[in-house]
Amino acid sequence: MGKQCAFIGLGVMGYPMAGHLQNAGHSVSVFNRTTAKAEKWSKEFSGNYGKTPAEAVKNADFVMVCVGNDEDVRSVFYGDDGLLSKLKPGAVVIDHTTASAELARELELAVKEKEGSFLDAPVSGGQAGAENGVLTAMVGGSDKTFAAADELFQCYAKTRQLMGPVGSGQLAKMVNQICIAGVLQGLSEGLQLARKVGLDPDKLIAAISKGAAGSWQMENRYKTMWDNHYEHGFAVDWMRKDLKIALAEADRQGVSLPATALIDQFYADVQKMGGNRWDTSSLLARLEK
Amino acid sequence: MGKQCAFIGLGVMGYPMAGHLQNAGHSVSVFNRTTAKAEKWSKEFSGNYGKTPAEAVKNADFVMVCVGNDEDVRSVFYGDDGLLSKLKPGAVVIDHTTASAELARELELAVKEKEGSFLDAPVSGGQAGAENGVLTAMVGGSDKTFAAADELFQCYAKTRQLMGPVGSGQLAKMVNQICIAGVLQGLSEGLQLARKVGLDPDKLIAAISKGAAGSWQMENRYKTMWDNHYEHGFAVDWMRKDLKIALAEADRQGVSLPATALIDQFYADVQKMGGNRWDTSSLLARLEK
Amino acid sequence: MGKQCAFIGLGVMGYPMAGHLQNAGHSVSVFNRTTAKAEKWSKEFSGNYGKTPAEAVKNADFVMVCVGNDEDVRSVFYGDDGLLSKLKPGAVVIDHTTASAELARELELAVKEKEGSFLDAPVSGGQAGAENGVLTAMVGGSDKTFAAADELFQCYAKTRQLMGPVGSGQLAKMVNQICIAGVLQGLSEGLQLARKVGLDPDKLIAAISKGAAGSWQMENRYKTMWDNHYEHGFAVDWMRKDLKIALAEADRQGVSLPATALIDQFYADVQKMGGNRWDTSSLLARLEK
Amino acid sequence: MGKQCAFIGLGVMGYPMAGHLQNAGHSVSVFNRTTAKAEKWSKEFSGNYGKTPAEAVKNADFVMVCVGNDEDVRSVFYGDDGLLSKLKPGAVVIDHTTASAELARELELAVKEKEGSFLDAPVSGGQAGAENGVLTAMVGGSDKTFAAADELFQCYAKTRQLMGPVGSGQLAKMVNQICIAGVLQGLSEGLQLARKVGLDPDKLIAAISKGAAGSWQMENRYKTMWDNHYEHGFAVDWMRKDLKIALAEADRQGVSLPATALIDQFYADVQKMGGNRWDTSSLLARLEK
Ligand SMILES: NC(=O)C1=CN([C@@H]2O[C@H](COP(=O)(O)OP(=O)(O)OC[C@H]3O[C@@H](n4cnc5c(N)ncnc54)[C@H](OP(=O)(O)O)[C@@H]3O)[C@@H](O)[C@H]2O)C=CC1
Ligand SMILES: NC(=O)C1=CN([C@@H]2O[C@H](COP(=O)(O)OP(=O)(O)OC[C@H]3O[C@@H](n4cnc5c(N)ncnc54)[C@H](OP(=O)(O)O)[C@@H]3O)[C@@H](O)[C@H]2O)C=CC1
Ligand SMILES: NC(=O)C1=CN([C@@H]2O[C@H](COP(=O)(O)OP(=O)(O)OC[C@H]3O[C@@H](n4cnc5c(N)ncnc54)[C@H](OP(=O)(O)O)[C@@H]3O)[C@@H](O)[C@H]2O)C=CC1
Repeated sequence: MGKQCAFIGLGVMGYPMAGHLQNAGHSVSVFNRTTAKAEKWSKEFSGNYGKTPAEAVKNADFVMVCVGNDEDVRSVFYGDDGLLSKLKPGAVVIDHTTASAELARELELAVKEKEGSFLDAPVSGGQAGAENGVLTAMVGGSDKTFAAADELFQCYAKTRQLMGPVGSGQLAKMVNQICIAGVLQGLSEGLQLARKVGLDPDKLIAAISKGAAGSWQMENRYKTMWDNHYEHGFAVDWMRKDLKIALAEADRQGVSLPATALIDQFYADVQKMGGNRWDTSSLLARLEK
Repeated sequence: MGKQCAFIGLGVMGYPMAGHLQNAGHSVSVFNRTTAKAEKWSKEFSGNYGKTPAEAVKNADFVMVCVGNDEDVRSVFYGDDGLLSKLKPGAVVIDHTTASAELARELELAVKEKEGSFLDAPVSGGQAGAENGVLTAMVGGSDKTFAAADELFQCYAKTRQLMGPVGSGQLAKMVNQICIAGVLQGLSEGLQLARKVGLDPDKLIAAISKGAAGSWQMENRYKTMWDNHYEHGFAVDWMRKDLKIALAEADRQGVSLPATALIDQFYADVQKMGGNRWDTSSLLARLEK
Repeated sequence: MGKQCAFIGLGVMGYPMAGHLQNAGHSVSVFNRTTAKAEKWSKEFSGNYGKTPAEAVKNADFVMVCVGNDEDVRSVFYGDDGLLSKLKPGAVVIDHTTASAELARELELAVKEKEGSFLDAPVSGGQAGAENGVLTAMVGGSDKTFAAADELFQCYAKTRQLMGPVGSGQLAKMVNQICIAGVLQGLSEGLQLARKVGLDPDKLIAAISKGAAGSWQMENRYKTMWDNHYEHGFAVDWMRKDLKIALAEADRQGVSLPATALIDQFYADVQKMGGNRWDTSSLLARLEK
Repeated sequence: MGKQCAFIGLGVMGYPMAGHLQNAGHSVSVFNRTTAKAEKWSKEFSGNYGKTPAEAVKNADFVMVCVGNDEDVRSVFYGDDGLLSKLKPGAVVIDHTTASAELARELELAVKEKEGSFLDAPVSGGQAGAENGVLTAMVGGSDKTFAAADELFQCYAKTRQLMGPVGSGQLAKMVNQICIAGVLQGLSEGLQLARKVGLDPDKLIAAISKGAAGSWQMENRYKTMWDNHYEHGFAVDWMRKDLKIALAEADRQGVSLPATALIDQFYADVQKMGGNRWDTSSLLARLEK
């Protein structure tokens, strides 16, 4: 049976995610800061929209959020028009934004005060994953809340993994981003050398991609990297936001992330080159500048 | 029909590789600096051995070498007892050692003078790959020589890729090692944070290993890394040798490898911890020291 | 003629700075969060103290602040007990805290609303500089305000440099800290090698300290570094605060600080060793761990 | 009383050094690979020259060498025309080249076989130091040999420091170069930020150069760095040679030099920009590219 849902934030990710929900038979009311997008969405998917987060969520048993960063999330939760102001008791609130674990813990308390329950559930899989409904969701929260929400997650996420208490989803996502940074810097340095010495990229990847050097990025990005094609994928600006979140958490935890910190600075060089919206694999462009 | 082969260097890799050759019906004469190992091999596989490289290769149409580094290779090629001194005209000489591309070019000339032909063919896949005969060989040389040798490569290498002229095999291997360094430093930083915040490693890897952060190392090493188990795999000392080769080639090519150079120093820290023979994934141990 | 002053924050730096002011004939009213220190100060220097920042500044024509970080500064400026609530029109407010340039600009506006004028004036020279009244002050603000305050700065700062508009003092201090990080990492790596190979440190420094490798840190810290003595000087925790400020400003400006970011992570390792209060030169201890 | 000397290598450094010796009343016979320079020198200073190192040294009681790198040194020592072939028994041989400590130990043995004694004595102070005779010499060898040579060192070196046994001069020079790398990367990052935010460089350096951030490079290079003027000073190519020597020694000693290794790669970027002969302070140009 269809659920009453609200979806806040119709960006590259949220727009198709909310669409999958509605298409699966749920009743979705959306909110987007720029109302035009909400109108477009509601036409395309025959769903409702609210003029404020509060209005969008007032009947919802499940509230999904997918906006930019911590501050953006706070701005849709709090205040007179914020979703908390009209949250139904018993509602499940899910934040799909990639944000800090601290924010997740803060929101859990705020949602509990409204007698709701909270999950942090950042996703991976990118625009394509969102459009094809095959994202991965890393979830933090209680078993019970996760079980309640999973039916909805299935509409857009192929893999859902409950990681632990609230915040754990964000922590898992941090690990994800840290790993990507290392993979991509190594791959970029390797491809840079390969190109300089004149190796054939297809033969190279055929030889090494199944072994100890292999990675998702190697298989899925070597061709675009070789072609200097970066106008796609996961944007450098988002990556730097995510790495900052990870670096701040590492500070809090007393661990050091030397390569991550260094590569974050290398991404600053990419931004200087105008690569704010380039795919994260553009570390190669920086090396070859 | 069985070929007359010689195999020089019966280490962790060479010993089983030479065994696979002999088992496949070829007639292999081995040489090892420490003769005891050659004797053991010849008993185990009913093959011959020579007391010098020269003696081992004197009847061979195919000569394989798999020793330590550039200097080691030179020491088995040159000199009165060196393999070049008794090389049969027309023989194919294959160097499986991970060494410099410059050495490969030097050896090609030396072998040509003896009317032979040369391939550089460093391998990946580790001890397990050698024992199970499923290595990957990255080969540099002519189409013709590669075609002649491929029947033999099949005895121990599942994947064989001709990369280009002599030296190209070594260059591909350098790219391989550079990529591994980046992957492993990122993975180590990620797992370090994961452990510190108390994430469950199996759930974490289930969530992230198929996506953009995924890598061979993540799938195959996260468990041993989590268990602080490094007494296996590809040794840090070898890795530093290989990274030095890559860094020197990069210098020659005028490219910079900032993360590779940094991670190479991190491996020096692992060596200080006594990790000379630990698997390359021990970068995590360094972070957690 | 003595001025009416207030001094907020009697830490390692503020306590002696306020003392020098009072000793020079000015009439100083202090505030410290932990009142005991304010009482001690007022006995030692025969000055007054307030129970809140507001109370301390109510008669002051010059208000100095020297607390910890941006947040601490905000907590003594704003709110019912904050210094702004009782600021005399025409007062000059000077922030000696090492903080962000953004905060300085924010405070300038807040002070202007109270008809006062503002200077950011972070200092260098450490505890000894504060105690001996020989600090360096890097000042941001107008010529006129600087000229008015300079008489007071002289009580504790030997060098005072107006750098430009409000915020410029903080920016200069950021440059200072960035330079220190590079100097100290290089010096630590150098001394580490020197110790390992058995060089005599006094002869070494005699030979190299006047030339191209020379630095204040080399001359003033090599001995304590060699003796593994770090219980003095400028604390690693403060340094990390300062480097974070610099890294955040660099992000805002679109410049990359690769070595600074890396060394900041190395300081995290020092913290893990228990070195939170160690001198910044303890990067050597990390290398030798 | 004037000594019989030979000086091998009349480059930027050797030419004026040999000149100072001759001017001080010693009898100097020079050798230079490119004979034209030796002829020019012998006219300018009324000294002799030989057509081979052997010829130049045959009457010398003191033999100075200042060529490029380890290999270059070997080429003037060994072989039929090498200086060892005609070395007078009892002669003191001094290598002023910046080279490895291992080479110094090798040369000591070779010179001892010819009944001579050896010092390694790399210098700092650059072209200006050489021309003005105010170099610093870091010397490895015995007290006795040092004492014998010091009179000659005084002709071109203001500071002479015996560091310990043969090799110690080179080791001290390595420490020197490591320290310079750190200082310059920090200074470059600092000045980059300063320029971006519009600080006045003279005021900035006035404020910070005497304190904890201060360095020889800051005082002597900030102006040329600010003016993007790098056509002077100590060349990046030489620096990379020296850093390689230091990194190799660190490997041998089991110490890690993470910042040095990273900065060495940054110098590779400078070389890519065409900066092979630029001053080492050109790390700033790289950041601002
Ligand atoms: N893009 C990707 O490939 C992936 C993104 N993510 C994460 O998902 C999140 C969303 O990314 P994406 O959809 O690409 O981002 P977009 O920039 O496409 O969309 C951002 C959305 O958030 C809204 N928003 C931003 N700030 C505010 C605010 N202050 N108040 C109200 N609404 C706000 C925007 O509204 P408006 O339309 O008015 O601007 C828009 O709907 C981010 O945290 C990102 O890191 C995770 C995995 C992959
Ligand atoms: N120490 C040094 O060598 C140098 C320090 N600096 C900078 O000077 C500043 C002060 O350093 P230092 O004196 O060493 O620091 P201390 O830790 O010794 O003292 C900090 C002072 O700030 C007060 N304070 C901190 N937080 C608050 C708050 N939220 N509300 C009210 N008061 C607060 C403390 O009060 P309480 O006594 O109650 O804790 C104390 O008086 C820092 O910005 C530091 O970076 C600059 C150059 C050198
Ligand atoms: N320049 C500087 O500021 C400083 C340099 N140094 C060190 O001093 C040494 C010399 O530097 P610099 O004088 O600047 O170098 P130059 O390049 O100006 O001169 C090098 C000298 O060595 C000779 N040479 C090089 N290779 C050979 C060889 N294979 N056989 C014979 N002669 C050879 C050259 O001969 P030819 O004329 O025929 O080319 C030339 O005389 C280097 O080790 C450098 O690192 C140390 C401190 C500062």
